[in-house]
Formats: sequence, structure tokens, C-alpha cells
Amino acid sequence: MARLALIRHGQSQWNLENRFTGWVDVDLTDRGRAEAKKAGDLLKASGVEFSACFTSVQKRAIRTLWIALDDMDRMWLPVTRAWQLNERHYGGLTGLNKAETAEKHGEEQVKIWRRSYDIPPPPLEKGSEFDLSNDPRYKLYGCKVPATESLKLTLDRVQPYFEKEIAPRLKAGESLMIAAHGNSLRALVKILFNVSDDEIVHVEIPTGNPLLLDLDGGLKPTSAKYLDEERATKLPTL
Amino acid sequence: MARLALIRHGQSQWNLENRFTGWVDVDLTDRGRAEAKKAGDLLKASGVEFSACFTSVQKRAIRTLWIALDDMDRMWLPVTRAWQLNERHYGGLTGLNKAETAEKHGEEQVKIWRRSYDIPPPPLEKGSEFDLSNDPRYKLYGCKVPATESLKLTLDRVQPYFEKEIAPRLKAGESLMIAAHGNSLRALVKILFNVSDDEIVHVEIPTGNPLLLDLDGGLKPTSAKYLDEERATKLPTL
Repeated sequence: MARLALIRHGQSQWNLENRFTGWVDVDLTDRGRAEAKKAGDLLKASGVEFSACFTSVQKRAIRTLWIALDDMDRMWLPVTRAWQLNERHYGGLTGLNKAETAEKHGEEQVKIWRRSYDIPPPPLEKGSEFDLSNDPRYKLYGCKVPATESLKLTLDRVQPYFEKEIAPRLKAGESLMIAAHGNSLRALVKILFNVSDDEIVHVEIPTGNPLLLDLDGGLKPTSAKYLDEERATKLPTL
Repeated sequence: MARLALIRHGQSQWNLENRFTGWVDVDLTDRGRAEAKKAGDLLKASGVEFSACFTSVQKRAIRTLWIALDDMDRMWLPVTRAWQLNERHYGGLTGLNKAETAEKHGEEQVKIWRRSYDIPPPPLEKGSEFDLSNDPRYKLYGCKVPATESLKLTLDRVQPYFEKEIAPRLKAGESLMIAAHGNSLRALVKILFNVSDDEIVHVEIPTGNPLLLDLDGGLKPTSAKYLDEERATKLPTL
């Protein structure tokens, strides 16, 4: 039986400031680091022996993984970084806080961008402060930086990566960890639980609370639980 | 032109206590962490854009790399962990401090084990406190844990790994970092500088001081310098 632990990074500085972050490489706050350590405690207590980890190329996810692995005394586990596991790119909303965005675009419109499955916000302007087209990491990984993404567009890059690099290893019975972001993990939950487009936008994955799945041979979850039960949110039906 | 940065981990707790460490997974001291950060500062200031990193499966090397990468704002670089880059296994000397060892075996004998190229210390006793045969990391990586190693035996596992996984990428012009240990790095220096068996045992690589090599197409160093010049040691002739 395969196991998969999904870990959303702990609180970042822009989570705290309530700003749209997307691909901007914002670090964890002290609270975020504490959440990552708690995640490590819980994963260790679960007794699952993982054989490999995946994460994005963004430091808030990588640091969450590092802190958890250190806490678990598993710094030696292989780690693969993949831009495909990055957070959803918020396009022109990047850097704005939620109040500013509502003022600029109207609350209804912001709600549509945040809560629709397939409507992306306006694109990020080329050459603007948060334009990462020339970031060396994306050149290294051969990634064409998007200008904006809906949740659907996020899933469109998460899914092929998952199917090519992660699913075969789960099918072979490995137990894997993925440390990533609210929306890249939402995409994975949509794939694994076969959630509809309408429902997935209501699934909220808490920060730093590992979601541990038991998967059958077809990668259908047979059991799913948040390791910190007090901070659990509603999961899609199995 | 390819570049290779070799980084020996910062001071560990057992370096401080002057004990033979080998494969025991001892962590860095605060001084070791500061050395790692300094290494990161120097690598950043060098301006070299690295495309990947290699390290052992021992936390003192991994943590050194983590601290340096964090400092360089390069947490997103791909990292490969390999047991083949582990420290030399000190066999039955593991855990003893240098004074205890001299008392037990005589100073002359200890000097032979430390300074000969191909005479390994007595094997570590099966089931002893420091026997790592059942450590899950070595099962995961498919490594048969040695009972003891000379520098030659260390090189015998470093060299094939280097030739298979690292050398082809250098030949393709990549710039790579390796964070490892006194003797696994000594083995790499022996290979790259073509140092004799007698001479290599006198090469001392300082902790946390990146050795930056420029390599030609045949991987012969055309330039070699420690980035912290004040803490540099003598290098083999180019």
C-alpha cells in the first residue's frame, strides 16, 4: 500500500500581510517555521517511513520541508524540486493585498478570480516588479513563466508532472511526501479525490497540517486524515 | 568552462571533541553553522551561477549545504544526496577520541591508520553502538555499510560515483557544488589533481572554506583557489 503526505507550507510573510503571493519567493514567518516543525513532529509520530520528497522551487515550501525533515531526522531523504508544484500564479493581482484588490477591481470581481475554477486574473505586466521571466531558476528548469493562472491552469501543469514523476512511484508502493502550496495541493486533491470543478474551489487545505493518504493500486484514497485533528478542515468524500 | 566548488562541512560536535566520526551522523556546532554561512557568503560573492549540488547522506554535510544555499538565495537548486560522498568509515576507531585511541593502540599505530593511504583501521564490531548496518538510509540507497575504510577504500567508492554522475555534467560545462567531508573531498582532489598515494594524505582541506576549481574539457584544473584566502591550505600543484 502506498502513502502520500501532502504538506502545505507554513505561514509566509505575505500570508500574514494578506497579499496575493503566487510565484513571488516570500519566506516563512516565525509562526510558519513553528508550523513546519509541528508538521515534522506529526509525520514522525505517524511512523510512516517515507522514501522520497517532492517540493516546489519556492523557498516557503522548501523551508517547510527542510524544517520537517530535520525534525524527523530524515535530512537524508532524496528531495526533488519541481516548478510544476509552485503556487498558482496570481497574474496582475500579485503583490496586492486583498483590500487593495477589492478597491481596484470590486469585491465581486475578486471573488470570481479567487473562487472560480477557470477564470484567471489579468496577466502580470511584463517588466513589473514581480515579473519573474528572467529569474535564473526558471531558466535552469526550462520553465516558461506564466503571466497568470486560474486553478485550472495550475492543475494543467501539476497533473502531467504528478502522472509522470510521482504516480508511478506510488503505484510501485512507495510512501512519498509533497511539500507545496494551497493551490498546487488543491490540484492534487482534485485529481486524487476526483472532485468536481465547482467543489474544488471550496476545499481549504490548512497550513503546516500534513494530510496523510492511504492509496490503493489505482491511487484511489482508501483513508485520508489530517495529522493535526484540531486544525483539520473538511475533506472531499472518499 | 566548467566550475566545481568543493565544500568541507563546518565544525561538527565530534570535531570539537576530537573523536573519530566517520559515518556517525553527528550535527554541526554553532561554529560549524557560522562556517557554513561564511561559505555561502563567499560562494555568492564569487558570482558563479551553479546549476546543481551534490552532498552525502550525513547531516553535517547536508546542513552545511542548506545553510550555504539559503545564504546564497539558491534554495531552489537541485540537490542530489549520495552515500558515496560520505566521510571515510573509521571502523573500530569510531567514537573514540584521539587520546583514547593512542592509549588503546599506541600513537605510532594510530598515525599509520590516519596517515597511510591504504591501511584501514580494525573493523567496527557488528552490533556495536555505532554499527549502522540497519540504518534505514542505507537500505533506501542500496548501500552495504562498510566495516572500515582506508582512504583508498573511500576513493574506491567516490571515484565511480564521480565518474558516472558528476564528471559528465562538468564535461558538458555545468558549474557544480559538492558539500562533503574531509576524506571524500580528499579523494576528489586526488582524482582531479592526479596526486600520488603518498602525497594525498598530507592534503588538508579546511572546514567551510569553498575550494573553487576551473576545469578544462578533460577536467584538469586550470585554476584552483580557496575562497577564504586567510584560511587557505597548501594545494597540490596544478
